[in-house]
Amino acid sequence: MKFSPLLDELIRELQVLPGIGPKSAQRMAFFLLERERPRGQRLAKVLDRAMSEIGHCQHCRTFTEQDLCEICANPKRAAVRQLCVVETPADLAALEQTHLYSGRYFVLMGHLSPLDGIGPAELGLDRLAQRLDEEQLEELILATNPTIEGEATAFYIANLARERGVKVTRIAHGVPVGGELELVDGTTLSHSLSGRRPLE
Amino acid sequence: MKFSPLLDELIRELQVLPGIGPKSAQRMAFFLLERERPRGQRLAKVLDRAMSEIGHCQHCRTFTEQDLCEICANPKRAAVRQLCVVETPADLAALEQTHLYSGRYFVLMGHLSPLDGIGPAELGLDRLAQRLDEEQLEELILATNPTIEGEATAFYIANLARERGVKVTRIAHGVPVGGELELVDGTTLSHSLSGRRPLE
Repeated sequence: MKFSPLLDELIRELQVLPGIGPKSAQRMAFFLLERERPRGQRLAKVLDRAMSEIGHCQHCRTFTEQDLCEICANPKRAAVRQLCVVETPADLAALEQTHLYSGRYFVLMGHLSPLDGIGPAELGLDRLAQRLDEEQLEELILATNPTIEGEATAFYIANLARERGVKVTRIAHGVPVGGELELVDGTTLSHSLSGRRPLE
Repeated sequence: MKFSPLLDELIRELQVLPGIGPKSAQRMAFFLLERERPRGQRLAKVLDRAMSEIGHCQHCRTFTEQDLCEICANPKRAAVRQLCVVETPADLAALEQTHLYSGRYFVLMGHLSPLDGIGPAELGLDRLAQRLDEEQLEELILATNPTIEGEATAFYIANLARERGVKVTRIAHGVPVGGELELVDGTTLSHSLSGRRPLE
């Protein structure tokens, strides 16, 4: 034990945060105690509330403390007959920031990973199939990550959609804008070549 | 607003932590919500308690939720007639880890910095002077940082001690063990030369 019991406990518990080791946790504890006690207490209260109140949107599974998230509750979004499948709420937020998509989402909260016990049920794919049955979708956009698991998940979901006669698309993979061909890996470059489009 | 109001608030409040920007805060929030809710709630509770309960040791001013810290409450420590002055509780912890010092401490919780309104009163130097008067000290060890402010603070405290006839020492500055002479700055090298000691 290096400090008082309560301070030791605070430093230990701060290490639950990703990327925070003993030294950073100690620095955080001292910083809050020395200078930001009111904000530290506000953080404690919000953290407590968030951990108990934030659940999942009943419609798209993203994080929200309400029954439906803002996007699912918005009738303008429902009018667009597109559904975009993403792995995480962070991916949803990244797509929202492009301001190019105005339909709704389905958040898997992960990807298929049988070794970790994550199958179709854990990703709510029964709920997704139900939505495919009920909603008259014109397009299902698969925006899972371009990783092996993300591709496998996209493949699985594409089959669900095809069985129901829904058009499926996959987001484009290729050379990132601002990147240099020389530095891009071979797989990405192959994707960018096979996915080439006519210049109009 | 990118997420639900409560989630947005959590991400905003996490940014009070030093070194945590919007991206890291988002990552922390998702990590806790997805995988560590019970530990997140434990962190919230400890943080709340720490912010309200942790005060300062009445004797040495370090952080503690008790009246006296463990070191000040230990009679073995009081028997050693040495007092070591450090700037922060983290400095105290670093010295404790050497296991070479068995006396007590005085924690300034900062250093003299008139431009920031930090004078002798803010560092509790009246309390330190009182201790110098009351305790029959054989040595006052100044372990403030080797910065301009730390040196000025050490100089000021040295005068307090000399007025009271207490022997004052300063921790050695020099080439760090494992360092290379070539890479050490000139001031440190001057210190290490002027502080040279006879080989026994």
